[in-house]
Amino acid sequence: MQIVMRTLEWDAKNHTLRMIDQRLLPGRFEIVNCESLSDVIGAIRNMTVRGAPAIGVAAAYGMALAACRSRVTDVASLCTELHSAADLLQAARPTAVNLIWAIQRCRQAIDQPAVSVSELRNRLLELAHTMAEEDIQTNLQLARYGASLIEDGDTILHHCNTGALATVDWGTALGAIRMAHEQGKRVHVLVDETRPRLQGARLTAWELQQYGIPFEIISDGAAGYFLRTGQVQKVFFGADRVAANGDVANKIGTYMLALAAHASDVPVYSVFPTSSIDLNLDNGDLIPIEERDEEEVLGIQVQGQPATPAGARARNPAFDVTPHALITALVTEKGIIYPPFRQNLIRALRG
Amino acid sequence: MQIVMRTLEWDAKNHTLRMIDQRLLPGRFEIVNCESLSDVIGAIRNMTVRGAPAIGVAAAYGMALAACRSRVTDVASLCTELHSAADLLQAARPTAVNLIWAIQRCRQAIDQPAVSVSELRNRLLELAHTMAEEDIQTNLQLARYGASLIEDGDTILHHCNTGALATVDWGTALGAIRMAHEQGKRVHVLVDETRPRLQGARLTAWELQQYGIPFEIISDGAAGYFLRTGQVQKVFFGADRVAANGDVANKIGTYMLALAAHASDVPVYSVFPTSSIDLNLDNGDLIPIEERDEEEVLGIQVQGQPATPAGARARNPAFDVTPHALITALVTEKGIIYPPFRQNLIRALRG
Repeated sequence: MQIVMRTLEWDAKNHTLRMIDQRLLPGRFEIVNCESLSDVIGAIRNMTVRGAPAIGVAAAYGMALAACRSRVTDVASLCTELHSAADLLQAARPTAVNLIWAIQRCRQAIDQPAVSVSELRNRLLELAHTMAEEDIQTNLQLARYGASLIEDGDTILHHCNTGALATVDWGTALGAIRMAHEQGKRVHVLVDETRPRLQGARLTAWELQQYGIPFEIISDGAAGYFLRTGQVQKVFFGADRVAANGDVANKIGTYMLALAAHASDVPVYSVFPTSSIDLNLDNGDLIPIEERDEEEVLGIQVQGQPATPAGARARNPAFDVTPHALITALVTEKGIIYPPFRQNLIRALRG
Repeated sequence: MQIVMRTLEWDAKNHTLRMIDQRLLPGRFEIVNCESLSDVIGAIRNMTVRGAPAIGVAAAYGMALAACRSRVTDVASLCTELHSAADLLQAARPTAVNLIWAIQRCRQAIDQPAVSVSELRNRLLELAHTMAEEDIQTNLQLARYGASLIEDGDTILHHCNTGALATVDWGTALGAIRMAHEQGKRVHVLVDETRPRLQGARLTAWELQQYGIPFEIISDGAAGYFLRTGQVQKVFFGADRVAANGDVANKIGTYMLALAAHASDVPVYSVFPTSSIDLNLDNGDLIPIEERDEEEVLGIQVQGQPATPAGARARNPAFDVTPHALITALVTEKGIIYPPFRQNLIRALRG
């Protein structure tokens, strides 16, 4: 973040993880201090921190906090505790694979020999720092690839928030748009509000204001109108998990947006770090879809009044799956991946 | 409305038009009294009354009010005044054709010979009453046709509000669902909230509660998830204007919903009175699309706080066009119309 701080920052003096409270933006900019593993799990669950890359790094710091706060005095006991901590973190949000990927790296670090408890603590904290730095470098690299797809004068339709706030810093799909802007290309962004949590209206709009990139907010349902009337040149979004065949699980609403873009021959780009790829899943229909509290849907207000009748119920799937046939290209830090995705994803991961 | 009153009612004692204030539901049930033409125009513009059929009848009563309130004493002057009133009403909302259709009927009544000012006044008031009664009978008839498409156990995805509140009484697409329910079929409705004005979350949910029909509210962007995972058997929505080729202009978001249903082979039904058909327009791309105040998008709140940053701008098209190829059938009071729509629409209108 150019503004004040990164989305996630380690406070070395107090040994706590500081994060921007994304639930309060754009109205208030406040910092939450996570002092323990359970603080981090809570922050991931209640979306104080969100965005697949940011969740992954937050989890790594959660593991470091678990190690720092532990009172055990021998390495074997600490290892046992940390694997339990990893299990708890992994269950916090089921759809994004970056969380699983980050915890897997932590587990590998735990399983390496250590001569002392403090060595293991330091190792986990160093790993979290490394992953935070890697995230930024990865984002800068994939943003450069993404920016190469953007032409001067483009209007880009963007879903959810994939900016600095969704990562440690810089962002993925929004990072590509930001990179194009910094390269001097004139870009205009149609920001869909992304109900129910409004990450577009709240977070992406706020970030674009900071960067000085012109934008307009639209209802999610209006995207088809702008696509069909030729007012959009490209669609950009992120990914929470990408299956081996290129199917993309991403924030709810992505699938309908991709369908509408495809129907109007507008290119669709999903931008993410390779840590979002899960080759263990043959296709997107195998990706678990988190269903969140119905209050996220029901709690909408207009002029301070509830906009749903008392007693109404809701369904609230947080993600959907966009079939690979609707996607023009997948943009990663290893390059731009075109169909056939199944073989080109493997090639990119090896390269 | 089973509840208290019709969406629109003429107050014969005070010579005013009473309407349910749909901006306040579901929180408050209040009645607005329109005492003049300009009251009615304001109510149509600010969506105190909305829904293509209700707007049409409201306009007819607006003409009756203009006639009642006029101070001229000769028929010729009254005719001139009333044609000016018709011009003003017609400009209130550009997309729905029922408004134009209703005013056209009023103009014909104005142009018939009259021996006195009071005869013309009475004629316009009687015409408005006739159109109100016709609307209810038309809706009951088209609802029966629509209900014949619904099977016991269906889950139906419904867009915007097309119930009693969108008409004088009973409703169109929601009227068909209500008819199926009254026929003893078990139906479950997924109500998409229909941003930005939330007619689904506010009005359709409220109506379904009154009728005792089980439902759940979903975000607009979630429709694709439920369609793609096989949880929806039919999609129902209304129409604000139907072109000669069967393209349907309807509340923003309809197009993306129809695209998603079509992609999952879920039947799509647009339900409307034949007064919504505009054979003067060859296809839907010729239908004027109203763009409303951006505050409808920007004014969303979460926990009493604005959900968009200060200074942000929005685009707010109120309708979109669904190409006829995505529509399984058009349901009217003259019957269920299948493709090819161009010839079958003409046949139905003649029949």
